[in-house]
Amino acid sequence: MVDVNRRRLLTGGAAALAAGAAVTQCGAAQSATPAGFGHTVEPYYGEHQGGIATPAQAHALFVALDLVPEGGRGARETLAAVLKLWSADAARLTQGRPALADTEPELAHRPARLTVSVGLGPALFERIGLAHRRPPTAIDMPAFRTDRLDRRFCGGDVLLQICADDPMVVAHTARVLLKNVRAMTVQRWRQSGFRTAHGADGSGATMRNLMGQVDGTSNLRTAAEFDRFVWDDGAGQPWFAGGTILVVRRIRAEMDTWDELDRASKEFAMGRRLDTGAPLTGTRESDPPDLQAQVNGIPVIPPNSHIALARPVHEGERFLRRPYNYDDPPAAGATTDSGLIFASYQRDPARQFVPVQQRLAGADAMNPWITTVGSATFAMLPGVAEGGWLGQGLFG
Amino acid sequence: MVDVNRRRLLTGGAAALAAGAAVTQCGAAQSATPAGFGHTVEPYYGEHQGGIATPAQAHALFVALDLVPEGGRGARETLAAVLKLWSADAARLTQGRPALADTEPELAHRPARLTVSVGLGPALFERIGLAHRRPPTAIDMPAFRTDRLDRRFCGGDVLLQICADDPMVVAHTARVLLKNVRAMTVQRWRQSGFRTAHGADGSGATMRNLMGQVDGTSNLRTAAEFDRFVWDDGAGQPWFAGGTILVVRRIRAEMDTWDELDRASKEFAMGRRLDTGAPLTGTRESDPPDLQAQVNGIPVIPPNSHIALARPVHEGERFLRRPYNYDDPPAAGATTDSGLIFASYQRDPARQFVPVQQRLAGADAMNPWITTVGSATFAMLPGVAEGGWLGQGLFG
Repeated sequence: MVDVNRRRLLTGGAAALAAGAAVTQCGAAQSATPAGFGHTVEPYYGEHQGGIATPAQAHALFVALDLVPEGGRGARETLAAVLKLWSADAARLTQGRPALADTEPELAHRPARLTVSVGLGPALFERIGLAHRRPPTAIDMPAFRTDRLDRRFCGGDVLLQICADDPMVVAHTARVLLKNVRAMTVQRWRQSGFRTAHGADGSGATMRNLMGQVDGTSNLRTAAEFDRFVWDDGAGQPWFAGGTILVVRRIRAEMDTWDELDRASKEFAMGRRLDTGAPLTGTRESDPPDLQAQVNGIPVIPPNSHIALARPVHEGERFLRRPYNYDDPPAAGATTDSGLIFASYQRDPARQFVPVQQRLAGADAMNPWITTVGSATFAMLPGVAEGGWLGQGLFG
Repeated sequence: MVDVNRRRLLTGGAAALAAGAAVTQCGAAQSATPAGFGHTVEPYYGEHQGGIATPAQAHALFVALDLVPEGGRGARETLAAVLKLWSADAARLTQGRPALADTEPELAHRPARLTVSVGLGPALFERIGLAHRRPPTAIDMPAFRTDRLDRRFCGGDVLLQICADDPMVVAHTARVLLKNVRAMTVQRWRQSGFRTAHGADGSGATMRNLMGQVDGTSNLRTAAEFDRFVWDDGAGQPWFAGGTILVVRRIRAEMDTWDELDRASKEFAMGRRLDTGAPLTGTRESDPPDLQAQVNGIPVIPPNSHIALARPVHEGERFLRRPYNYDDPPAAGATTDSGLIFASYQRDPARQFVPVQQRLAGADAMNPWITTVGSATFAMLPGVAEGGWLGQGLFG
C-alpha cells in the first residue's frame, strides 16, 4: 500500500515543484505546551454512564441509529457487536487515548471532558428477541396536543450521545464511533447542540437558551436526588440498575413571533425575568416562585406561565434537564432555525416527565412560541465496569 | 400589547396551578461573577474589518445572501440599507452591547472576541449600477479541474462572516443581523465552522483539520505581510483601500477512503508528518521544507505532495489562510460529511490564489481525498470609521 501510493505520488501530474524559488517560512518556533482545559478527563468506568450527571459540557451531538443486521447475523448479535466496539473505543477516547485503529490519533489527545453515552429505543428490545428484558419504564412518549413531529427527528434503535467542551473532540469521536459501526447501522437523525463556551462565563451561571431565557434553574443537583429521580434501581429489570430513561425532544423556537412580543409579555409567559432569571415574585434566580402572590387580586406569576405549569405538583415529577441549544440552516425563505434539544433524564418518564408535559401541552403560555418537532426515548444503559462492556447485563 | 397578552395568560387553558404542592427549590445562591474570556473584545472601527487579521476565533458562521429589492426601492438603495443596519448593529454587538432593538439583550454581554465582516459578490456591482466601481480584483474563480461544485454552496450577493469564541454569540449575532434585513434579502447558503475550543489547547498551536493534519503552518503573520499580500491599497478603486478579496471554498474530506490509507501514504500526500506537522525533511512544524532533499535519488518530499504544490512559487503567490472545520449531518447512507471551510484572503486572487489552486487541481497528491463542493468570492469591504458605515465609500 505504501509503495503503490508512493509511486502514484512520484509519478502523478505535472511536477510544479517550487525548486529554487524564493520561499520564505514564517513559522514561529514551537514552545513547550502549557496545559489547556482540553486535558481534563471524565471517568469512563463506573456505576453510571457519563454525560448524565456530568456537568453539561459546551457541545453535544445526539445521533440516533437503526440497526442493519448483516447476512446471517441477527439483530441481537449486531447490537452486541456495536456495544462492544463502542465500549472499547469510548473507554480510550474519553481518557485522551486514541481509539484502537484510530486513523486520526492526534485528534484524541485532549478529550476536554468527553463523555459517550449510549441508549436503546423501546422498540428495539422486541426486535432483538429480548422484549421480556425491556425496562418497563422504557416507553415511547404519548402524543401531546402541541406536538408537530417531523419524522426526521423521531425514534431510533440506538442513541449515541457525545458531549465535550471542544467541538473538535465531538467531531473526531463521532467519526470514530460511527465509522466503526457503519456496516451494521444507518444513521436515522443527528442533532448538534451547544451552550456557552467553556470558560467564556466565569460564573458557572445557569445556561441561557437562544430566546434569551435562563433555562434550567430548577434542576437536580445532589447525588441523593439523582438516586431518587434519575438512576434506575433495578426493581423492574435487575440488569438495568444504574441506567436511566432519556427523553430527547427537539423544540423549535418560533423566533420571528417571539421577537415581536414585548418584554413584559415574555416575562409573564415564562414567569421569570429575562435579565436575572428570577421568578416574577423574587429578585434572584434561586428565589422560589411564590405562586400565591397577588397584586390587586391578580397573580403575580400567571397560573399558566411556563414555570407555574412546569413545576412538579409533587416530588415524584422531578427529573434532570440537560438541554442544548441548536442553530441550524433555516428552510428556504426562513430566517432562523433554532431552538432547544431538550434532554431530560428520569427513572420513569410516564410518572415524571409525561404529567408535566401534559400540563404544558394543555396550557403553557409559552406554547405559541415553541413547537416540539422531534421526540425519542432511549433506555440509557447502566455504566460499564472495567473489563466489561455496555449493556452486557442485558445479554447475560 | 402587554395588556392583551397578560389577559391571554390569565384566561388561557386549564390552570394546573401547583398551589400548595410540596415544592423544593434547589437553586444555589448566586455569587459574584468572576470574569470569563467572554468579555474580551475586538475593535470594530478601524482601517480594516475585523475577522481577517484577527487571530482566528473558535467558531465561525458564513452566510451568503442575495438582495431582494422591495417595491420601488432599487438594489443599490437596498444594499445601502443593509450595510447601514449591519454597521450600527455590529458596532454595538462586537463591543458587548445589545444591538438597537435587540430582543435578546442578555445574549449580547459577553462578545468573546466577536467580529462581523461583510463582503460583496463580484456580480453585485453591476446589479447596483456601480460596475465601474467594482475592484478589478473582485472576480469569480475560474473552474478548476477537480471542482465538483454544488450550487447550494456557491456565489451570493453579500457575505456575512461572524466569528467568536462562543457559539452562543455567533448564533445571537446571526439572529440579530439576519432578521434585521430579512425583508431585503434571502439567505443563499450558510456554513458553520469550528476550530479547537478557546483555551482547550494552551499552546496556541496551529489548528488541525478533521483529517488529522496540522493545517495552516505557512501563513501570513506580520502587519507588513498583511499590507503587502492582503489589504487592498486603493490603486484599482480608491474607495476599496483597506479591503481585501475573500475566496471561500467548501472542501469536503473524503473520510471513508482517507481513513483506509496507511499513515506513511498520508504523510507523503501532504509532505508533512501527521504527529508534529513537520515537513518530511524536518523535525519541527516550523522547519522550512527542503524540496531538494533526496534519499537514493528519490525526493523525500514528493514533488506532487500538497506542500510542494501549495507553496508559493514566488512571493506574489502568498495569501492568508483562515480555515474552519465543518462536520454536518451526512447524506442518507453516508457516515460523515466533514471537511474544511477554506477561507483565503488576498489582494488579488487571480495572481495569488488562482495559480496555486491550478497547480493543486492539476496534480495535488491529496486530490483523491478532498473535493471542492462550494466556491464564492467576495470583496470584503474596507473598515468603518467611527460615525461611518460599511461600504460608505462605494456609494459616496
